[in-house]
Amino acid sequence: MTATVSPVTLQVKDGPGQPDPTPELHELYRGFEQELLVPLWTEIGDLMPSSPRPAARSHLWRWAKLLGLAQRSGELVPVGRGGERRAIALANPGLGGAPYATPTLWAAIQYLNPREDAPVHRHTQHAFRFVVEGEGVWTVVDGDPVAMRRGDFLLTPGWRFHGHHNQADTPMAWLDGLDIPFVHHTGSSFFELGPDKVADRSTPDRSRAERLWAHPGLRPVSQPEAQTSSPIAAYRWEHTDAALADQLDLEAAGHPGVLEPGHAAVRFSNPTTGGDVMPTIRAEMHRLRAGGSSATRREVGSAVWQVFDGTGRVRVGEREWEVDRGDLVAVPSWQPLTIAAGSQLDLFRFSDSPIFERLNADRVQVDAS
Amino acid sequence: MTATVSPVTLQVKDGPGQPDPTPELHELYRGFEQELLVPLWTEIGDLMPSSPRPAARSHLWRWAKLLGLAQRSGELVPVGRGGERRAIALANPGLGGAPYATPTLWAAIQYLNPREDAPVHRHTQHAFRFVVEGEGVWTVVDGDPVAMRRGDFLLTPGWRFHGHHNQADTPMAWLDGLDIPFVHHTGSSFFELGPDKVADRSTPDRSRAERLWAHPGLRPVSQPEAQTSSPIAAYRWEHTDAALADQLDLEAAGHPGVLEPGHAAVRFSNPTTGGDVMPTIRAEMHRLRAGGSSATRREVGSAVWQVFDGTGRVRVGEREWEVDRGDLVAVPSWQPLTIAAGSQLDLFRFSDSPIFERLNADRVQVDAS
Amino acid sequence: MTATVSPVTLQVKDGPGQPDPTPELHELYRGFEQELLVPLWTEIGDLMPSSPRPAARSHLWRWAKLLGLAQRSGELVPVGRGGERRAIALANPGLGGAPYATPTLWAAIQYLNPREDAPVHRHTQHAFRFVVEGEGVWTVVDGDPVAMRRGDFLLTPGWRFHGHHNQADTPMAWLDGLDIPFVHHTGSSFFELGPDKVADRSTPDRSRAERLWAHPGLRPVSQPEAQTSSPIAAYRWEHTDAALADQLDLEAAGHPGVLEPGHAAVRFSNPTTGGDVMPTIRAEMHRLRAGGSSATRREVGSAVWQVFDGTGRVRVGEREWEVDRGDLVAVPSWQPLTIAAGSQLDLFRFSDSPIFERLNADRVQVDAS
Amino acid sequence: MTATVSPVTLQVKDGPGQPDPTPELHELYRGFEQELLVPLWTEIGDLMPSSPRPAARSHLWRWAKLLGLAQRSGELVPVGRGGERRAIALANPGLGGAPYATPTLWAAIQYLNPREDAPVHRHTQHAFRFVVEGEGVWTVVDGDPVAMRRGDFLLTPGWRFHGHHNQADTPMAWLDGLDIPFVHHTGSSFFELGPDKVADRSTPDRSRAERLWAHPGLRPVSQPEAQTSSPIAAYRWEHTDAALADQLDLEAAGHPGVLEPGHAAVRFSNPTTGGDVMPTIRAEMHRLRAGGSSATRREVGSAVWQVFDGTGRVRVGEREWEVDRGDLVAVPSWQPLTIAAGSQLDLFRFSDSPIFERLNADRVQVDAS
Repeated sequence: MTATVSPVTLQVKDGPGQPDPTPELHELYRGFEQELLVPLWTEIGDLMPSSPRPAARSHLWRWAKLLGLAQRSGELVPVGRGGERRAIALANPGLGGAPYATPTLWAAIQYLNPREDAPVHRHTQHAFRFVVEGEGVWTVVDGDPVAMRRGDFLLTPGWRFHGHHNQADTPMAWLDGLDIPFVHHTGSSFFELGPDKVADRSTPDRSRAERLWAHPGLRPVSQPEAQTSSPIAAYRWEHTDAALADQLDLEAAGHPGVLEPGHAAVRFSNPTTGGDVMPTIRAEMHRLRAGGSSATRREVGSAVWQVFDGTGRVRVGEREWEVDRGDLVAVPSWQPLTIAAGSQLDLFRFSDSPIFERLNADRVQVDAS
Repeated sequence: MTATVSPVTLQVKDGPGQPDPTPELHELYRGFEQELLVPLWTEIGDLMPSSPRPAARSHLWRWAKLLGLAQRSGELVPVGRGGERRAIALANPGLGGAPYATPTLWAAIQYLNPREDAPVHRHTQHAFRFVVEGEGVWTVVDGDPVAMRRGDFLLTPGWRFHGHHNQADTPMAWLDGLDIPFVHHTGSSFFELGPDKVADRSTPDRSRAERLWAHPGLRPVSQPEAQTSSPIAAYRWEHTDAALADQLDLEAAGHPGVLEPGHAAVRFSNPTTGGDVMPTIRAEMHRLRAGGSSATRREVGSAVWQVFDGTGRVRVGEREWEVDRGDLVAVPSWQPLTIAAGSQLDLFRFSDSPIFERLNADRVQVDAS
Repeated sequence: MTATVSPVTLQVKDGPGQPDPTPELHELYRGFEQELLVPLWTEIGDLMPSSPRPAARSHLWRWAKLLGLAQRSGELVPVGRGGERRAIALANPGLGGAPYATPTLWAAIQYLNPREDAPVHRHTQHAFRFVVEGEGVWTVVDGDPVAMRRGDFLLTPGWRFHGHHNQADTPMAWLDGLDIPFVHHTGSSFFELGPDKVADRSTPDRSRAERLWAHPGLRPVSQPEAQTSSPIAAYRWEHTDAALADQLDLEAAGHPGVLEPGHAAVRFSNPTTGGDVMPTIRAEMHRLRAGGSSATRREVGSAVWQVFDGTGRVRVGEREWEVDRGDLVAVPSWQPLTIAAGSQLDLFRFSDSPIFERLNADRVQVDAS
Repeated sequence: MTATVSPVTLQVKDGPGQPDPTPELHELYRGFEQELLVPLWTEIGDLMPSSPRPAARSHLWRWAKLLGLAQRSGELVPVGRGGERRAIALANPGLGGAPYATPTLWAAIQYLNPREDAPVHRHTQHAFRFVVEGEGVWTVVDGDPVAMRRGDFLLTPGWRFHGHHNQADTPMAWLDGLDIPFVHHTGSSFFELGPDKVADRSTPDRSRAERLWAHPGLRPVSQPEAQTSSPIAAYRWEHTDAALADQLDLEAAGHPGVLEPGHAAVRFSNPTTGGDVMPTIRAEMHRLRAGGSSATRREVGSAVWQVFDGTGRVRVGEREWEVDRGDLVAVPSWQPLTIAAGSQLDLFRFSDSPIFERLNADRVQVDAS
């Protein structure tokens, strides 16, 4: 725990409901400062706005730039005990230079050189990987080797030991998502080191977790309990792709299923509860038909989107970007988001929505585009 | 939304797992800064500690000082539209001068002069009042007047219109608790103004909510649904006191019920679910026998304690204070807490525990004192 | 397990969808009988009616008659091991002479002579007592003595050891309610004997369970878990009466709360969940103003009503009765029920509604009277 | 509602706890009979046994016999309005000739001739189909055509309109499972006719429900709510087979997953909750290695097993049978069950376990075989 003591510094303010700036008031405020007190009446506008005014800003990070810097890090920065991971995090421009994509979410590019290992550890932070390109790395989660391939969504729920190793002769990069900022802010981080290298270096196509759990609507009778996080270690692209294609085909045949016209979407879910994959993180894959556009939607809570395939335009509030494969956009709470597809456009999305739903604080507003 | 853009400023660091501080590395870090990126390997120790190291610090605020400054505010600061409330918040010395008792919890003394009104508004932030002394104010929650008296615990769950008015010829002060910091950090604040004055100025002993809901184990058949927050507007001291006394009497007769030897505790609960009174806030009343002492306990999540009656000593980590009626102590996440009673000691406690329980991140460690 | 084998006996039937009654058909039906088979097409009308057509019938039992027979049993029938209880059950006239008030519910008058004991046992069947008159008996539930007095509703959830003893010089009778028929039909009965006499013969006013749990909205911090059945051993008349009076007073002042005009109702609930007191049994107390009348209501599932105080008329389908203190009425599934109060009328009701709610099979239909 | 009134007929009994058989006692019992009352003390042994003693008996029905009688019914009995279905139900020999496989479960062989239709209706009873052989029929559930093929498990949750039509030139038979006896006993049946023929006669390989829902761990974002019953209309044999094979492969490689040594088992589940497919019915597929044997297991609640493939021996209590493809065994509550595989043995099982789990009355006892 840091020993730093922060002083309180109060400004006398003008405006409706503010007291007269008399010498007595100044003296009162000095008393507040001395006793580590802050009046509500000077702060309420910022603290309790009529709708969310997050400090975080919408921002676009280009995959090409990320990848270039990650490759350079691959040359200069070792992976090992202490630093633990060669991961480079998005720092939201509204959050003071902290490595936070949003106030609750961490998003980083992680990079492994050929034949390289990332050491084993575990932590209460929930993590996933999403692979926008490449293959050859296995992440080993509580001893179960999980192959990583383009389009796959892979889970490392909190407090599971995990390390990675690259079995290929080519480097590999992917997206890491975690709830590090939320855990840090709320003071709930626990962390433990494991071995320097993963023990099981086998390279199966499917993890043991998938063999037990990734059959549609089927669960092993030996494990009847609800689990906090999904036991499916890997959600494979072939299933995700088929589910999205099925939604668009159903729509074409006049049947319900898509989220809105021309917009298919699936949520990765925990088969033991039907809920989100992890307690703090929602993850989804979206597909827009070429030329289609989403409604404008705002939602309590923040999200990060990554283009998986195709091109289009993403608008958040007043800002708008052309996006291409791998590009990442941070969407702060309650910012209106619209997505327009140039080509058919596939996007991965993760958000902190489960936090708000579990705390009964979720709100959504959708305007037809 | 603020337009401020925060620069990223990276330091090359020393230590295990850190890359060599070559000119190339410096150049790489300049690239990170330019692209709003932060490497994990320089930050992981702070971001993901082996156990929580909150920025917030334990701290004691003396009620006598708070009350003196509140009285002076009563002379200098009006209550009305804009400032909304004459409330003065505890500012944790580790949190940069912000009006946060902990990273998630707001605690303030609120003060109303005789015959004064606090105007009506509503907000998504959940609120309660706890009365350490005095009476004469009614808080009117969605049109239902709720008397406030010493020992009472009163609810204003999120998004209910509420205003207060003092019907007495004496001023009144009380403790306000809210989840303002949590809501602010996560960007989920909505706020609306209501009328300048409460409409129903009647002064019943019991609120309508109590008449419907504050009968032990009984609920109106007309309202069978589970409610997000407790419908009991006021938990009266006479019931709380009796429940604590019953626990100690049971213990004296050799029966279970107390939390630990000599330590009775009741939790204010939502009778429609059995859970906490509000989604983000837990509230409890504790009673220690004279001369008794609690075990040392640490818990994920933060809390604020207020002495309701009696005297004793509170120790948090390395710090320890003599405490008296009304004194307030902030306990950051995972800090070990021990309470020792001089006289019989009654304490009110509120915490953010429901957040962690609902997100499956709660942990507790108890050491016999 | 009984060794009785029941033959299948099939009738060739007439009507729409029925096959021609040829000799070949007769031969086919003999084949069915031989192989223990029954065709759907002859049975579907009875098995799957368009709305429930229960075999159980509505019926009224007069308390005066019950009490007379119970008193006579007090003279002729001992209470002890083997017979276990001097309880006399309502046998619904549609259920073949079985001691079932409805297909799921047992209702009986139980009777103890002065200074008499009912031996200790436990069973998976859930039980309660409701006291329409008298006092002097303590039921001892898992060692906790619980006084029984007029108006009290007392719980013995499944698998708790319990015995009763009469400390008075007068006999005492009360209503027992259990889910015996449901448990019998579904084959889920477990039963164990305990001591012949209760161990703790103390006669406290309040049970230990009440001292821990019967404080409005308060629960002991030492027992944070949800419990299958309510931990409140006794719901006292003074609280029930006050809650009903409060609802009628609120109505008189123009506020919501009553179930319908002139009709107050409270449900006994489990403070650890907000749900029903036991998994299979709902219990409520109703109060109608003098001269008032309920809407006509039908509900999936069956119920038993007992008049606690006052007089009135109860109509179930085509049948109608004048009712007085203690009288009992069985209401089969989906039978329309209307209650009209002569004097102010208090009624106790118990039903199997939780079974249907937990199985998502509940339906209610209300017609204004 | 039947107008039949059942008389009560009481026997004076001998034994511990029974009163002396005096003339006064006989007179008392006549009084009980007259008032429709039954004493507990004569009935308690039967009503509340120390462990379940169900009236239902274990029994084996041979598929070959069922199929022969179904084929003959195909010649003699039309399918149409009124009779509704050509279904022939198992009548448990302990249940008085009623068409109940167990006190809660219905099991029948249903049979459709080439090009035949079963008319559309809906009912609150929950239904499934399991196909032990054949194909060519589509069941159309709320307008969605669902192909039926060997090994498939198909759902018709309560209150969905459904009809069947055979598109093939060959007849088809399958197993129907419903909760008819439970619904009948508890008086909760609602039933409505639909059109005489299904409207959508298309013959897709996969239903629309499958295209939306049968992707492992993925759910459509457009339907975020929990559903009472599983939205997966068909659980296809290829997935079930693969999941069972995966479990046995994992076991062979030394990893957990099987239910017990040599015994793989998957439960069909509701992807929106992780729970059972329907509120009253559990369904599973089991696979035993050739020569393997299950532990002996008893469970509160009843089940029906059908051999899907292979041969073996099934023992229930004192009875034992050689079983072959299609054979059906009813297992009453708490009867010890052991299964031994001759060849590799695949079995389908359905039970009423969800009823007991939802009512907190489930119990299981497993003895190593």
